[in-house]
Amino acid sequence: MTFAPFERVALIGLGLIGSSLSLGMQRGGLAREIVGTARSEDTRRTAEQIGLVSRAFASAREAVDAADLVILCVPVGVNAALAEEIGPHLRDGAIVTDVGSVKMAVIEAIRPHIPDGVWFVAGHPISGSERTGPEAGFAELFDERWCVLTPDRDTDGDRRATERLTAFWRALGSNVEIMDPAHHDLVLAVTSHLPHLIAYNIVNTATHLERVTDTEVIKFSAGGFRDFTRIAASDPTMWRDVFLNNREATLEMLGRFSEDLSALQRAIRYGDGDAMFEMFSRAQDVRRGIIDAGQDTAEADFGRRAVAGDDERDDKRQADAVGRSRAGE
Amino acid sequence: MTFAPFERVALIGLGLIGSSLSLGMQRGGLAREIVGTARSEDTRRTAEQIGLVSRAFASAREAVDAADLVILCVPVGVNAALAEEIGPHLRDGAIVTDVGSVKMAVIEAIRPHIPDGVWFVAGHPISGSERTGPEAGFAELFDERWCVLTPDRDTDGDRRATERLTAFWRALGSNVEIMDPAHHDLVLAVTSHLPHLIAYNIVNTATHLERVTDTEVIKFSAGGFRDFTRIAASDPTMWRDVFLNNREATLEMLGRFSEDLSALQRAIRYGDGDAMFEMFSRAQDVRRGIIDAGQDTAEADFGRRAVAGDDERDDKRQADAVGRSRAGE
Repeated sequence: MTFAPFERVALIGLGLIGSSLSLGMQRGGLAREIVGTARSEDTRRTAEQIGLVSRAFASAREAVDAADLVILCVPVGVNAALAEEIGPHLRDGAIVTDVGSVKMAVIEAIRPHIPDGVWFVAGHPISGSERTGPEAGFAELFDERWCVLTPDRDTDGDRRATERLTAFWRALGSNVEIMDPAHHDLVLAVTSHLPHLIAYNIVNTATHLERVTDTEVIKFSAGGFRDFTRIAASDPTMWRDVFLNNREATLEMLGRFSEDLSALQRAIRYGDGDAMFEMFSRAQDVRRGIIDAGQDTAEADFGRRAVAGDDERDDKRQADAVGRSRAGE
Repeated sequence: MTFAPFERVALIGLGLIGSSLSLGMQRGGLAREIVGTARSEDTRRTAEQIGLVSRAFASAREAVDAADLVILCVPVGVNAALAEEIGPHLRDGAIVTDVGSVKMAVIEAIRPHIPDGVWFVAGHPISGSERTGPEAGFAELFDERWCVLTPDRDTDGDRRATERLTAFWRALGSNVEIMDPAHHDLVLAVTSHLPHLIAYNIVNTATHLERVTDTEVIKFSAGGFRDFTRIAASDPTMWRDVFLNNREATLEMLGRFSEDLSALQRAIRYGDGDAMFEMFSRAQDVRRGIIDAGQDTAEADFGRRAVAGDDERDDKRQADAVGRSRAGE
């Protein structure tokens, strides 16, 4: 009744996704052995020390040796060079997949380097956080999230590899959707790439004003701005690569967004309260849909606590608060 | 050592802020009696039943009778009519304040109706959530957040009222900042009004596409989009009134945002990865600043849990997951 584990999984890249994959595989018993590689020696050492991999190799070429599953967990811009490096070293019958946020460009980059007898199916788990590095991972990252697989070929072998990966992601806790690569890039341009772009942009705008200081922006960020900064704190290399590699779809969505924003700007300028009210009301249904689909928490404010996480700082604040309340008597 | 409580506080409006103020005052013993009013009879009944107020009056005029503190907790568009109604009924020596997200327009609306011997100091607690109604409140809403007071007059009486309100908000758990009303409106246009506008806009864009369905937008929202929908689920009436009443500052900030977005669009079109990388990197510092200032949680993903809040649904998902993992064997 359990998932038949892979013999040896090679994680190429040991950041948030790579480390979470390791912990998720360990939780579910999905691999007999997990090895990996990372560009930085620090990361490799940490990954071995905290037990993400039994061995962290200095090169991807060594890491893929004898692996029956190879998962590329790197910024999408790195894939072409990486695939070229590992191609000749892939084991016959191995499955290669990736976790990149863009699929057309990734397939174009990787496909030419996949030898006959090796199966490549691109993938994208729609989950993440603003954290990076080997210690950011957690086994629950993929629970209840969607993983999109975008097979670009349709032989029996490809279909079997897609089925095997589908079972793998489900065993990791995810839902799986099979999608055309181009459609994936369009959907993600709306649900992920445009939101990140907007978030980066508003942080940039807010911190380059003359009449409002950065200190004020930070102090009064609980009015809404802070929500955007979480997304904008994501890995800059990863996101640069996303926009460089999903240009057309991102620009299309950005064009729509700007058009709509102009209409909203006009409604504000001319004081059209009815138009605003109607538009604002509809947004609540979308939120409800996301919660009902299990894609976000139903708790107010994401369930966050104002003073969570840092006990020492909390104690200090508590002391400050007492001081204040005395002063205010 | 304790805050000298008000004799009778009148809450005009018993939504998220009004109900949280009641619970916060009860937690801190800041009022000997709390009364209130709300437009809807349901809200008034609920507020009495759950103990937010000792009495919920049918009219604001009755509610302010004998109150030494009156707090207007209504959408900002309602203030003018409300102030006109209660003005003649305010007790000599009473303090009147509000919690609106806009301060210039609110002062203009309220000030003419404040009789001699009554003190009016406008205010704005920078806290909230996407929830509304009398049952949405919680005593901790103002803890560690900033409350901005924007006195528009400077007599001894006004200064004393400002000091009294400063002590009141500190006793509620907040930090207090005194600010010029026009500057408040500019700062909040950046940290709150623009973010809400952008959030409403992206939800509108995402749900009016031809080639991506609403179901897809919802399913794959964990890529970033879902963060925006929380803000966009805020009360439509409140936000319509904010944009109608802080038009100039909002349009100014929107203009800056659009300019910056055009530059970013250009960087994407021409593949300028260096410009993107530099801009994206700076955003992490802003996030760090907000966490260090105690204005957001340091936990990844706001500390939210994928499957929090709804046990029944979780059980069902669990069952589905088991089914899936069996099917995927």
